[in-house]
Amino acid sequence: MIRSPHNDTLKLIRRLAEKRHRARTGLFVAEGEDLVAAAEAAGVKPESLLVAAEDVEAELLAAVSSLGSGSRVVGVYKQRFADPGGRLSVYLEGVGDPGNVGTVIRSAHAFADGPVTLGPRCADPYSPKAVRASMGSIFHRPPARAGFEELAGTTVALVAGEGRAIDELPLDPPEVLCLGAERDGLSPAVMAGACERAHVPAGPGGPDSLNVAMAATVALYVRSRMAAHA
Amino acid sequence: MIRSPHNDTLKLIRRLAEKRHRARTGLFVAEGEDLVAAAEAAGVKPESLLVAAEDVEAELLAAVSSLGSGSRVVGVYKQRFADPGGRLSVYLEGVGDPGNVGTVIRSAHAFADGPVTLGPRCADPYSPKAVRASMGSIFHRPPARAGFEELAGTTVALVAGEGRAIDELPLDPPEVLCLGAERDGLSPAVMAGACERAHVPAGPGGPDSLNVAMAATVALYVRSRMAAHA
Repeated sequence: MIRSPHNDTLKLIRRLAEKRHRARTGLFVAEGEDLVAAAEAAGVKPESLLVAAEDVEAELLAAVSSLGSGSRVVGVYKQRFADPGGRLSVYLEGVGDPGNVGTVIRSAHAFADGPVTLGPRCADPYSPKAVRASMGSIFHRPPARAGFEELAGTTVALVAGEGRAIDELPLDPPEVLCLGAERDGLSPAVMAGACERAHVPAGPGGPDSLNVAMAATVALYVRSRMAAHA
Repeated sequence: MIRSPHNDTLKLIRRLAEKRHRARTGLFVAEGEDLVAAAEAAGVKPESLLVAAEDVEAELLAAVSSLGSGSRVVGVYKQRFADPGGRLSVYLEGVGDPGNVGTVIRSAHAFADGPVTLGPRCADPYSPKAVRASMGSIFHRPPARAGFEELAGTTVALVAGEGRAIDELPLDPPEVLCLGAERDGLSPAVMAGACERAHVPAGPGGPDSLNVAMAATVALYVRSRMAAHA
């Protein structure tokens, strides 16, 4: 039973709240029973696992929580990265909000066979917020890291109001749905280099853009249903 | 120019970070140029509007930010609530995450003509996180507050793995898409009382549930497209 806040594992968990320590160690933290169970379901073993009142005093574990939730279980895991690929996948650029990155990882797990490929200026997918937003899907579907020029197949730039509606664009797999940040959009290189442009059609009177995670989720759903019905 | 942290408007803004003060006053805060511009675009006038370095010292305004973003513009607005209704709308129950509530308000703005109706145990839609997640849509489409029994039209309970796929359920408007929290789902009253059950179909190997905001967004998109093509 760990009874000191100076314990090495507790110190490690505290440090892993910072991106530079995650980058240096290649490790990350998953807090809470749901995430730890998701890791186990995916066959991913923790480097360390602390259970409150069994391995460590509950207050000490709560004190290293980066989510302020006072988790009863905290695991330390190795970061894993996949290669881009699959019949359907997503490429993100400049998506700096970790919640959005994690949510798209969840949606790709639900609707795609390929990973979420993170291009430049994306949030760390292994930050506590991104891991939580992925609802454990990060263990089942590790993200990839690559530039747009490394993608293969039909790249579809999703841009509000441009190209065809996403449900009217013929399928030509393998397909990579490319999305940028809400404010800045996709880089000129992607806008010029993508094979197709498409948009998620909103109803009349709607806003001119969607949250990037919502747009990615709808597009993934549409393409997966089109493939299932093809 | 406000130069004192004891200024009444600054004190009000600070207090409105708390739900009980929002409930007591019927006011809320929108931080940042995008949200304040969204209010203006929707024709909603602020009760107070503070611009850094014009109306107030920038550090004092930054100090009352509840988002930690150091906003340059902060507006105080009256909370507004709509009545349930519309050809297509959403009913949420037990959705305690303000980010999810705000995201669904954004999605309903994009795809539906009716409001998001908040049932029991939902997060305050006028909390700073919910307002930000709505990306300003809360000004265009104020939410409603009502119980399930007050809804009219075809109520569709969205439940993972149950009923028909949402794109295979015939349209019978007016329609209310009903969603519960990820963990607890919809209450027995809704499960028993809803006219239909449906699910958002995931691909093979996918997770058994989606984030509630993503499920709502996909379902809203699908139903709005079916209506547009009908």
